[in-house]
Amino acid sequence: MTGLDPVSANRAFGGVQGVWKHASAATGTDMTFAVYIPPHDQGATLPVVWYLSGLTCTHANVMEKGEYRRACAELGLILVAPDTSPRGEGVADDPDGAYDFGLGAGFYVDATQAPYAPHYRMWTYVTEELPEIIGAHFPVDMGRQSIMGHSMGGHGALSIGLRHPDRFRAVSAFAPIVAPSQVPWGQKALGGYLGPDVAAWRSHDAVALIEDGARLPALLVDQGEADAFLAEQLRPHLLREACDRAGIDLTLRMQPGYDHSYYFISTFMDDHLRWHAARLG
Amino acid sequence: MTGLDPVSANRAFGGVQGVWKHASAATGTDMTFAVYIPPHDQGATLPVVWYLSGLTCTHANVMEKGEYRRACAELGLILVAPDTSPRGEGVADDPDGAYDFGLGAGFYVDATQAPYAPHYRMWTYVTEELPEIIGAHFPVDMGRQSIMGHSMGGHGALSIGLRHPDRFRAVSAFAPIVAPSQVPWGQKALGGYLGPDVAAWRSHDAVALIEDGARLPALLVDQGEADAFLAEQLRPHLLREACDRAGIDLTLRMQPGYDHSYYFISTFMDDHLRWHAARLG
Repeated sequence: MTGLDPVSANRAFGGVQGVWKHASAATGTDMTFAVYIPPHDQGATLPVVWYLSGLTCTHANVMEKGEYRRACAELGLILVAPDTSPRGEGVADDPDGAYDFGLGAGFYVDATQAPYAPHYRMWTYVTEELPEIIGAHFPVDMGRQSIMGHSMGGHGALSIGLRHPDRFRAVSAFAPIVAPSQVPWGQKALGGYLGPDVAAWRSHDAVALIEDGARLPALLVDQGEADAFLAEQLRPHLLREACDRAGIDLTLRMQPGYDHSYYFISTFMDDHLRWHAARLG
Repeated sequence: MTGLDPVSANRAFGGVQGVWKHASAATGTDMTFAVYIPPHDQGATLPVVWYLSGLTCTHANVMEKGEYRRACAELGLILVAPDTSPRGEGVADDPDGAYDFGLGAGFYVDATQAPYAPHYRMWTYVTEELPEIIGAHFPVDMGRQSIMGHSMGGHGALSIGLRHPDRFRAVSAFAPIVAPSQVPWGQKALGGYLGPDVAAWRSHDAVALIEDGARLPALLVDQGEADAFLAEQLRPHLLREACDRAGIDLTLRMQPGYDHSYYFISTFMDDHLRWHAARLG
């Protein structure tokens, strides 16, 4: 592994909000991520919550607007927020510069299709390379991990959580894409990154993973009822139906009046972190 | 008064974070401000906390990064965040485009000097025009107001609070400019807006106002010890000494490791809002 460079560090809620940059072997680019370390005893190791962000976001959106530090400080949780795609010279973007594919929209898959395959390897980055870095450089107890995300990042949290049931003790999401194979955002992204064979999409589709046998003890999902993407892109009833059939204990909370923004996320962040902390021990 | 146009409204913590725009008579420009309305009973009126922002900020910085909504919702407080200067075509800026004068740096004074006098009337805007709008359009109890601010906005909160002891039941600040007449930021701004006669600066200088007899029952100030502007621009010991001489009950908390950013502000926002709520009844 190459070096890890500090970008910024700010004291907050008794701990430190850091931003770090490193040359990623997975993506072949520099990658930036945020880590909040709460106050803790010297030598202690802490559970770690992964937060995966949505379309157009970097590591910075949740860091600035997510309002997670108070609860992380109180509960003793480290929170890691990766970027949502590779970036930089030579990284292919959506041919039309659309917000929902390419830069800022890696969808947490390893692309197999040209011209995306060389850099768009967010699955490997988030599930292998970055955990190694976090485990090596921060005071984490890697035996106590959980994962959450928003929108595209909710898709990431669900699909990564479902495929790593022994790694993550809790999985939750804000307004997640639950069935990318069945909605326009997901069809564009999975088609573009993985190609037209929809069989290859199933391991990156939470509803399909559950249909194919993946299981988790419990899921927490909050969804705003005034979310402009609810009916076309998010469709939480598909997750409801899959969990019911599979016997997965899904707590799906429809929140009246809330939209897709960080005003929604920040409102319920505390609930999610407490739900994670209760399962992280 | 001309119309008030909604810019955005997002449900958050059970209330609504709104942004509004209007044609200001005071500044002769359009002005934008943010108002958070917490959940409340129909027909109720609520106390209002004014938050004045620092250099380079708009209404949006504290709205996105200030983490005030949880406490405002719990305590039943409305929070109003104005912009920091007039903006738009024909509004003079710093001749060199510096960040500490002109756009984003109105210093909460009514300019008397060319070319700033026509639009830079933030004192009148924040103390007269905007309160009228807030009183007319939002469910506020204008008998229960308090004021806080950060850096340049801390200067604004202190100077406005000291000159309106019957209006504001609580005054507090994060890393305020306490003696603009004695520090480079303030000397540049007060000189540029009010001219070279330093006698005219005293009514916009918290320490000078206290020396000249202004009084408040109590002040709460938090100041990060790792704030890069502490020694040259902020100098809270000048406020400490003035309050001691005047018998003003100043709680000045020096916070080890904290800088000048919203990571610092958001950490202590809750304490300030609780301190205000206790005095707003």
